[in-house]
Amino acid sequence: MDKLHTIYYFLDLAGTFAFAISGATAARHRGLDLFGICTIAYTVACGGGIIRDVCIGAIPPAGLTTWYYLAIALVAAIMTIGLYPIVQRLNRPVLLFDAAGLSLFAVTGAQKALSYGHNGEVAVLLGIMTAVGGGVLRDIVLNRVPVILEKEIYASAALIGALIVVLGNHLKWVSNDWIAIIALTICFTLRILALRYHWNLPSFSNGKASVDN
Amino acid sequence: MDKLHTIYYFLDLAGTFAFAISGATAARHRGLDLFGICTIAYTVACGGGIIRDVCIGAIPPAGLTTWYYLAIALVAAIMTIGLYPIVQRLNRPVLLFDAAGLSLFAVTGAQKALSYGHNGEVAVLLGIMTAVGGGVLRDIVLNRVPVILEKEIYASAALIGALIVVLGNHLKWVSNDWIAIIALTICFTLRILALRYHWNLPSFSNGKASVDN
Amino acid sequence: MDKLHTIYYFLDLAGTFAFAISGATAARHRGLDLFGICTIAYTVACGGGIIRDVCIGAIPPAGLTTWYYLAIALVAAIMTIGLYPIVQRLNRPVLLFDAAGLSLFAVTGAQKALSYGHNGEVAVLLGIMTAVGGGVLRDIVLNRVPVILEKEIYASAALIGALIVVLGNHLKWVSNDWIAIIALTICFTLRILALRYHWNLPSFSNGKASVDN
Repeated sequence: MDKLHTIYYFLDLAGTFAFAISGATAARHRGLDLFGICTIAYTVACGGGIIRDVCIGAIPPAGLTTWYYLAIALVAAIMTIGLYPIVQRLNRPVLLFDAAGLSLFAVTGAQKALSYGHNGEVAVLLGIMTAVGGGVLRDIVLNRVPVILEKEIYASAALIGALIVVLGNHLKWVSNDWIAIIALTICFTLRILALRYHWNLPSFSNGKASVDN
Repeated sequence: MDKLHTIYYFLDLAGTFAFAISGATAARHRGLDLFGICTIAYTVACGGGIIRDVCIGAIPPAGLTTWYYLAIALVAAIMTIGLYPIVQRLNRPVLLFDAAGLSLFAVTGAQKALSYGHNGEVAVLLGIMTAVGGGVLRDIVLNRVPVILEKEIYASAALIGALIVVLGNHLKWVSNDWIAIIALTICFTLRILALRYHWNLPSFSNGKASVDN
Repeated sequence: MDKLHTIYYFLDLAGTFAFAISGATAARHRGLDLFGICTIAYTVACGGGIIRDVCIGAIPPAGLTTWYYLAIALVAAIMTIGLYPIVQRLNRPVLLFDAAGLSLFAVTGAQKALSYGHNGEVAVLLGIMTAVGGGVLRDIVLNRVPVILEKEIYASAALIGALIVVLGNHLKWVSNDWIAIIALTICFTLRILALRYHWNLPSFSNGKASVDN
């Protein structure tokens, strides 16, 4: 199944690019300078994976050693600075790539934790962290409440993707490649449907409004 | 002294529950959704211990591998959502459990750092981190200045608890079990007295007010 | 070249002190209490190095084990509380020491990553992290957008210092000591010139202003 790894590789690049674009765009809106925009782009692209690698003992973290992650983040940052009208028009494919990145990072994050010999709970938690950690760091650095904790089916799609990997790995009904394909497809479909139909998880604040500054 | 370990175990569960309740309540007030409330509850319960374990090389962190920490955090989150009036009425026991958790996490955090062969400074710093790190992460994610850095005798009670463990371990006047009991008692008492009599550490801002948003 | 290591040692202490002063001053302005001021002073002084050490597998992190870093941070915190008029008058030397610390931490951070056998990308990224990570953590905890991402030639000076170390180490045109001296001098000069002439990196926000709270 070499074809699968080619697809993985493409999804990895596309997802990294979409994550970096989301970081660079948010940083630009916030008025950060050249260095700030590059930093946030890179943080969104690699932050979740770095936290995962530190927690599973994969030292040094892949996000720090792999040159093309950094290169993709810098290209996304420079595009967001120099070709902003184009980046804005790319909004729809970027959302698609972002959903692809979300699915891939959740699945490969859970797989990597399992491959280091850790248990299913670690794999699910760090699968989610790989997928959404970078976005959470972006929002923390930009001084706002992480959007994925407030609304949208985003982290919960990652949860389901990582959960399928762990359950599939435990039950061994089908090969690991098929488990990954199923997990990717379900996570991606869930995220796209949630975007299309504006699905949100319930929230429960009473009286006191959720004011983000 | 098997009785001590039973007490430890009970305090650990009660403290984890109280920490998770504090996270879930704050997340609910801030208008986070279901996933956000569960995440913040889990972060407060396990965040400090995860940072400690990463720093001492205890990979994977206990907070990620132990199923009942996650389970307790989810129960606390769901109670905060579904049984909010009851959780509000539990305010007083939760403060008590929270003080118990603070003491236990400071003591066991320092002990774990020592047991990994690190020096007294590491043990004191990571004892404090175990006890207050989750709460600091909660406030950072919820976009406010950590309350324990602004007022209250909270982190300083943890400091004293961790310090007693390290000094006791160094001087070896009594057994480690007795050191732990003394440290737990003093830290807990200090925290309860500070709550009861509204003790605060001094602050020194001049002119410019401390405005939290 | 024992003289070099004496200079290193002095710069390390002076830089740590300046970083701690910047943390303590910001914490005092924000109205934090005694514990908060000490914590932020220590965080700025040691935070970047601790993140570096966790990422390269240097466990436990030097910032947690070295007593004089903690001692310097506490002295800086207490000076900022008790001798605030003097600390304010020290503004100019503190800026100088801060630039020295920035240069030294970028250079030694990159060197340490290389000495642990990691590649040039890791060394550059973690050299920057060593130099600016503490300041970024300070701003995150104090609930504001990190100033180094918004303006000033600060992190970019660290980037150039770390880059020179990595390139020099790769090309081996001169000895490592000379590489370090060149990197230190260029990084320090760049930072001082940027301060003197108010150099900033460009930012690109359009319409929406960059409002920090």
